[in-house]
Amino acid sequence: MHLVTGGAGFIGSHLVDRLVSKGEKVRVIDNLSSGRIDFIEGHIGDSVEIVIADLLDIDRLSDAMEGVTTVHHLAANPDIRLGTKVTDTDLKQGTIATYNVLESMRKNGVGRISFSSSSAVYGEVEAMPTPESYGPTLPISLYGASKLASESLISAWAGTFGATAWIHRFANIVGPRGTHGVIYDFIHKLRSDRGVLEVLGNGLQEKSYMDVEDTVNGMLHIIDSSDEGVALYNLGTDETVSVSRIAEIVVEASGLEGVDIRYTGGDRGWPGDVPRTWLDVGRLDSLGFEAKRTSEEAVRRCAESLIDEIGL
Amino acid sequence: MHLVTGGAGFIGSHLVDRLVSKGEKVRVIDNLSSGRIDFIEGHIGDSVEIVIADLLDIDRLSDAMEGVTTVHHLAANPDIRLGTKVTDTDLKQGTIATYNVLESMRKNGVGRISFSSSSAVYGEVEAMPTPESYGPTLPISLYGASKLASESLISAWAGTFGATAWIHRFANIVGPRGTHGVIYDFIHKLRSDRGVLEVLGNGLQEKSYMDVEDTVNGMLHIIDSSDEGVALYNLGTDETVSVSRIAEIVVEASGLEGVDIRYTGGDRGWPGDVPRTWLDVGRLDSLGFEAKRTSEEAVRRCAESLIDEIGL
Repeated sequence: MHLVTGGAGFIGSHLVDRLVSKGEKVRVIDNLSSGRIDFIEGHIGDSVEIVIADLLDIDRLSDAMEGVTTVHHLAANPDIRLGTKVTDTDLKQGTIATYNVLESMRKNGVGRISFSSSSAVYGEVEAMPTPESYGPTLPISLYGASKLASESLISAWAGTFGATAWIHRFANIVGPRGTHGVIYDFIHKLRSDRGVLEVLGNGLQEKSYMDVEDTVNGMLHIIDSSDEGVALYNLGTDETVSVSRIAEIVVEASGLEGVDIRYTGGDRGWPGDVPRTWLDVGRLDSLGFEAKRTSEEAVRRCAESLIDEIGL
Repeated sequence: MHLVTGGAGFIGSHLVDRLVSKGEKVRVIDNLSSGRIDFIEGHIGDSVEIVIADLLDIDRLSDAMEGVTTVHHLAANPDIRLGTKVTDTDLKQGTIATYNVLESMRKNGVGRISFSSSSAVYGEVEAMPTPESYGPTLPISLYGASKLASESLISAWAGTFGATAWIHRFANIVGPRGTHGVIYDFIHKLRSDRGVLEVLGNGLQEKSYMDVEDTVNGMLHIIDSSDEGVALYNLGTDETVSVSRIAEIVVEASGLEGVDIRYTGGDRGWPGDVPRTWLDVGRLDSLGFEAKRTSEEAVRRCAESLIDEIGL
């Protein structure tokens, strides 16, 4: 039995799809703060069961560990920008939630954990593309801090209590069912004003994007490739796309004519935004995994599917 | 005004001594869980005031920020081994306490934080001596995880809210007033049995030790040398000493004759113990700082002073 925390969320629900397609049994635990039942509804009762609970409720979480062999821990606050206004969300829904997951695993004899970390742990780095061996890791967002804190807890549990762990440092993951992020924001802006698209920052931010299908395939590939200690991998594509290009792609996908793309200026979207992220995915390559979509293809597919879901 | 968290503790009280000798005003906040009033008693009322409170009491902590320009955050659970039995002490007294310090600083407009991190953040590394740029940092103790989590919070606060930070990754710090660690343990073992000294592990563990006076001088040197963003430095000596040599030094310092040193065997003292730590202190050297005592000299001074304090 696989336990997927945040399994009704964006990436979590795609992971559930993939596990089900492989014939696996899955239990989802999700507080539905950003996840949605309808993302996994088609599976429920068949090979998927769902526990609607918050990871801060350690009793419910502990009960959910029964019969579990592998935990896929994806639950977290998905809104990186929130940390600039509310400072305890990432601490609670990130760091303390991860502690609760690990402690529940230990008490119930569950020994395998796959964790969705983030390129945000690197902060603002000079080395591009950035390898896993880059240090020191000095995140500049509270979200990034909670991901690094969670990595360190997982690593300590492996070293002290013998858990086996896979840590995936994600690029920007995009695709159908996305509930946050720049493409989602652009579409909502175009819904409220079909003539103007305001872009935070100067549009020159460059980041790697990865399609969510590639992401969940990559996660399972990494788990299958290593079976001891802590395996830590960057998970992304080997190139980037700029924010201004994303704006163009979203406008193209919208079919709207004559949209005026305006920039607020400045080299980052908000305090804690990393202007440039490009992960070195050489280690992932060496496992024989290749993403099917480039950053730009992933952005385009995401824009088209979200416009379809949300409507303009 | 300087605020020293854990200022009645081992390293904290030496930092208070040094700040007072430089003519600075100091406020100490300490819950006295391992700190002792008599370590700083001589200064109180003069240039030092003390608030007896736990950092989890955010109201008391916030009150203590009044008039403070620099926070020296040293408070933490000092017993690394405790994490093998009690899993939430480092989370609460390390990670959450650091969050409370940062949030109280932000709310009170205090912008400078110096933090005592640890070589434990590196975990079990291949690169010796280990530079600050080593990555990924995968701690194997819950103590190390809480130090890395605290670093990441400090870095995020600097990146998001503009704090200025100094992070010191300590070697094993030893000296008078030590309340934990291998030398302290050996002396207590000799007190209960003057004929046998049992050493956990095979005695081959090799670690860097630094005298506590060198440590507090190094911390203040680093603060004086950098004034923007996050300055992160290893703080230690450039060589190591083995556990078996420490046992010999303690026995020599005790003056006892014919002590039988016995080893329990195994390459580490307990799960989560890192068998070998040796920090690369090249960056610290480049700031013009030099430790006065070697690892072995620091161990000997510590053994002599603790035997004097504790008695045999």
